[in-house]
Amino acid sequence: MSDGTAITELAKRRGFFFGANEAYGGVAGFYTFGPEGAALKRNVEAAWRDRFTVREGNDEIEAPTIAPESVFEASGHLDGFDDMLVECGECGESHRADHLIEDASDIEEAESLPIPEVEELIAEYEVACPSCGAPLAGRSVEEFNLMFETAIGPGSGQPGYLRPETAQGIFVEFPRLKEYARNKLPFGITQIGRAYRNEISPRKGIVRTREFTQAELEQFVDPDTDEPPLSRVADVSVKLYPADEQEDPDGGHVETTVGEAVEEGIVASDWVGYYLGVAREWYDRIGVDGDRFRFRQHLPGERAHYAADCWDAESEVGGVVDDPDDPTEGDWIEIAGFAYRGDYDLSKHADHGDDDFTVFEQYDEPRTVERAVVDPDMSVLGPEFGGRAGDVADALRSLAERNPEAFDGDEVTVEVGGEDVAVDADVANFRIEEQTEAGEHVTPHVVEPSFGVDRTVYTLIAHAYDQDLIDGEERTYLSLAPEVAPTDVAVFPLVGDDALETLADEVVNDLRGAGLSVAHDDSGNIGRRYRRQDEVGTPLSVTVDHESVERDEATVTVRDRDTTAQVRVPVADLAEQLEAVLAAGGTFESLLEAYDAVETDVTRS
Amino acid sequence: MSDGTAITELAKRRGFFFGANEAYGGVAGFYTFGPEGAALKRNVEAAWRDRFTVREGNDEIEAPTIAPESVFEASGHLDGFDDMLVECGECGESHRADHLIEDASDIEEAESLPIPEVEELIAEYEVACPSCGAPLAGRSVEEFNLMFETAIGPGSGQPGYLRPETAQGIFVEFPRLKEYARNKLPFGITQIGRAYRNEISPRKGIVRTREFTQAELEQFVDPDTDEPPLSRVADVSVKLYPADEQEDPDGGHVETTVGEAVEEGIVASDWVGYYLGVAREWYDRIGVDGDRFRFRQHLPGERAHYAADCWDAESEVGGVVDDPDDPTEGDWIEIAGFAYRGDYDLSKHADHGDDDFTVFEQYDEPRTVERAVVDPDMSVLGPEFGGRAGDVADALRSLAERNPEAFDGDEVTVEVGGEDVAVDADVANFRIEEQTEAGEHVTPHVVEPSFGVDRTVYTLIAHAYDQDLIDGEERTYLSLAPEVAPTDVAVFPLVGDDALETLADEVVNDLRGAGLSVAHDDSGNIGRRYRRQDEVGTPLSVTVDHESVERDEATVTVRDRDTTAQVRVPVADLAEQLEAVLAAGGTFESLLEAYDAVETDVTRS
Repeated sequence: MSDGTAITELAKRRGFFFGANEAYGGVAGFYTFGPEGAALKRNVEAAWRDRFTVREGNDEIEAPTIAPESVFEASGHLDGFDDMLVECGECGESHRADHLIEDASDIEEAESLPIPEVEELIAEYEVACPSCGAPLAGRSVEEFNLMFETAIGPGSGQPGYLRPETAQGIFVEFPRLKEYARNKLPFGITQIGRAYRNEISPRKGIVRTREFTQAELEQFVDPDTDEPPLSRVADVSVKLYPADEQEDPDGGHVETTVGEAVEEGIVASDWVGYYLGVAREWYDRIGVDGDRFRFRQHLPGERAHYAADCWDAESEVGGVVDDPDDPTEGDWIEIAGFAYRGDYDLSKHADHGDDDFTVFEQYDEPRTVERAVVDPDMSVLGPEFGGRAGDVADALRSLAERNPEAFDGDEVTVEVGGEDVAVDADVANFRIEEQTEAGEHVTPHVVEPSFGVDRTVYTLIAHAYDQDLIDGEERTYLSLAPEVAPTDVAVFPLVGDDALETLADEVVNDLRGAGLSVAHDDSGNIGRRYRRQDEVGTPLSVTVDHESVERDEATVTVRDRDTTAQVRVPVADLAEQLEAVLAAGGTFESLLEAYDAVETDVTRS
Repeated sequence: MSDGTAITELAKRRGFFFGANEAYGGVAGFYTFGPEGAALKRNVEAAWRDRFTVREGNDEIEAPTIAPESVFEASGHLDGFDDMLVECGECGESHRADHLIEDASDIEEAESLPIPEVEELIAEYEVACPSCGAPLAGRSVEEFNLMFETAIGPGSGQPGYLRPETAQGIFVEFPRLKEYARNKLPFGITQIGRAYRNEISPRKGIVRTREFTQAELEQFVDPDTDEPPLSRVADVSVKLYPADEQEDPDGGHVETTVGEAVEEGIVASDWVGYYLGVAREWYDRIGVDGDRFRFRQHLPGERAHYAADCWDAESEVGGVVDDPDDPTEGDWIEIAGFAYRGDYDLSKHADHGDDDFTVFEQYDEPRTVERAVVDPDMSVLGPEFGGRAGDVADALRSLAERNPEAFDGDEVTVEVGGEDVAVDADVANFRIEEQTEAGEHVTPHVVEPSFGVDRTVYTLIAHAYDQDLIDGEERTYLSLAPEVAPTDVAVFPLVGDDALETLADEVVNDLRGAGLSVAHDDSGNIGRRYRRQDEVGTPLSVTVDHESVERDEATVTVRDRDTTAQVRVPVADLAEQLEAVLAAGGTFESLLEAYDAVETDVTRS
């Protein structure tokens, strides 16, 4: 187990992550991943790509992070992507009004309350400024849009925004992406990249930042016909926390399988259920502790109006992340979301954008359908309505499609330019026609698994963090899965002996040549080097010692991070053997069976 | 050979790249990489990482793309990162004044001219607005900063900028990064990520964009003692285009080796020479055509004042990229830069930032050195200078370090608060002291190989673009190196036969399981599918046909992209065989030797 402070301290000391630009005082909400963290993050991204893009047969794209205003008008972010801001009249600090209410009362989800009510609650609970203590009652609460704005081009430029999510870069290109998918549903498009939210007052360290990395999949489906391959994950065990359990004071987690959860309707969408199963297996693979993981359903107030069902993946990260003011919050953090978004996204862009956001689905064979049509007699409409005759005819055509019954009487009324206009039914020439159609235009529905990469990285460190005693000395180590560990192998030569250093160079080159990531560390005594690699989660350490060059064939010792067991392995076999151990998830057993164990002072106590 | 229009058209049709947000009219300078382009780009990045990070033993970090103003004050970007802007008085369009001058005259590098001269040249050459034709004489030319600005946090916020290069994110974190490198020079830090330049009027398609990806290496070295492993690349052949050859009307390329170029001083820095060699080999590996590649030295006017030597890697991309107005420009495009930057970057941050940007280098044994020191008599300075006495003492200390000779006379003069102050030499207590020092603080020099990823991708497509005749029909194909090709293998089942489709599914799963990237294409006739994969550069295509299920063991045909040769291979051997072919750079010979060739209608004419 770990607490946030220990992890943040380790992360900084060992180069996982740290506040950016500290030489210039830093700016809240921006973090730099150091060598170890960047490697861990890349490995997480590669594992995600393997599972959600490659193995699902999806395609990945890369869109710009800046987009013009029109895109976010369509998506709704320009109007609706706000947090509630209250500024202290004394010190000028800005705060999230809803968070202050939640801290001061038992109210949850203050975000969903209307602004006047939030202003009243600030007065009622006598909320004070967290920075200076001045009362905030009477201060106005305002909507603050969380998008970073910029200007594209010279002069005042054209307004542009840094994307608040990678998803829009996929939706806006749907007309082209469907062509690459050869106009066949279902298909999925993924993207891994930066996203930006101009948080009012970021806290909780790397868990809530202003610039972060998302890995998103937009799965486009025909809601009537496409089904996910649910059987592949039907038996996967999941810990669910449905909305009704959250609302029940005695409620708790539901342990079940994906198949049962979908069958019993706990998870409403089979597509969402499928991806919960895929995600659960993937989290297991990269080293998220199943006992500290759950899927939590959004409460009705949390859910976007268009989302039929929405679940978050949450991890328990053992205490607050980096916020000494609030030792309880942050125990469970959201690390992914799974939403059934219906046709909301593509319909919005079809309304605002100038392109075709549907897929034309050909019927197996052409169908004959009945269509209500009109063929207005323009020789009558023309003299009667003059310049408006064309509009009247269009209005009649539209009415026939929408409401054929309107043509049942002798006269039919349509609205043209805000006015009701009556037309003889005979003049409209209404009739029902048989038409042959080759297919239909379908607006695909969107299923969206969306992962927070930074928070996944944080979770992996928190769940891998462990301590034990080695020869009476406390040791900290990260038991990271080999697939995500920043470094595969560390190589330590005893220093001061040219022959050993030359051999170490050869070993390092061999291992790098085999595609392994290798740390070459010749600084400090061997024990200290082991500790350093333990703290960054390197699964295997190789030592080149005096015995290495004493036999006919060169040998080295190989040490297992978690057990500290050691064996002596010929250099000739090393790359192949270590690759095998890493591919097997770090299991050291095969080495222990095949080679001589090494007795050293540094054994597990 | 190819021209820019054909490539841009292919790129859009096949999903390499296209202008972003076209449904909203698009914005110049922003491109989206579709599935094929994103895969090609990722493969280029992975190959770069393998060569410049992993095999060099360097470390990679990930910094935020937004940084506060203070960082760019220090780096010089806030003041100096400008282009010359002239706005048309008629139509209001903005243009780069230096480009207009270059287009209208024989002048090159108009960028380096002072603004008044550029304004005069606009009048002299009667430059007209390229958009509307109105004369631009008399319009003022202004400096336009190319950084995208934004506000961090609520209210007016704190000014922040999107980084114009990834490098600063490395330099500002040097004080921490040197710790991870255990304070030992040389070490290298790499970063691959987005960078942004708010170009005045971007053109030339994906070659000049407002958002792009860089792969940069900052190599920190002790200029006195660190040497690159030049022998590793001394024999690499390079085509150089030195500054003096560019300035000579009869000048041309110099064909030599890296070793000779450094020895003869054509390349001044051995570190730059080393990376030219590494880069040349790397470009070869990923498929840049050596005949259409050169290293061009910066002309004296092009080079930053602090850069001792600077070379660009340039590729010839066969005609203009996407600018019908200018059919010649763009033949040679810059795809990387190699600069010896001295201590400029770290000194700047040491001046502006609050941290230690040096490395303390321990001497092998402590050294005794002579140091000029003063020990001002405050009992005299105090009464004489009052509150300024401390400043006077500091000025004396600083002067002693800088210029010990100033203390040779009876009186010494220092500047305090803009005023000259005279002090008795006796009062200063100047003397030369012997001091023992364990080491010294060194400000590392920076060698910077900096790669443009988007332009590299463009070059690979341009150099791989080829056409031939197959059965009398013209075929377009990309002969991409397997390491960077978006897809390794395409699998085509004959459609309408369940057994074949099931076998194809198995083959696809097998190949994906082996880590290959696989396209599963069951749309259109086989010939058309071949053409599609040829155009995206897929090295190998597998067809599941009726014969596949006719024998005891299932077989498929495998086709070579470049020669269109085909062999029949048992499914049981397939994954292993294809992995071997791809690992060997796509050489099909081994398959032709081991298996039966397939005679088909579709053979190379």
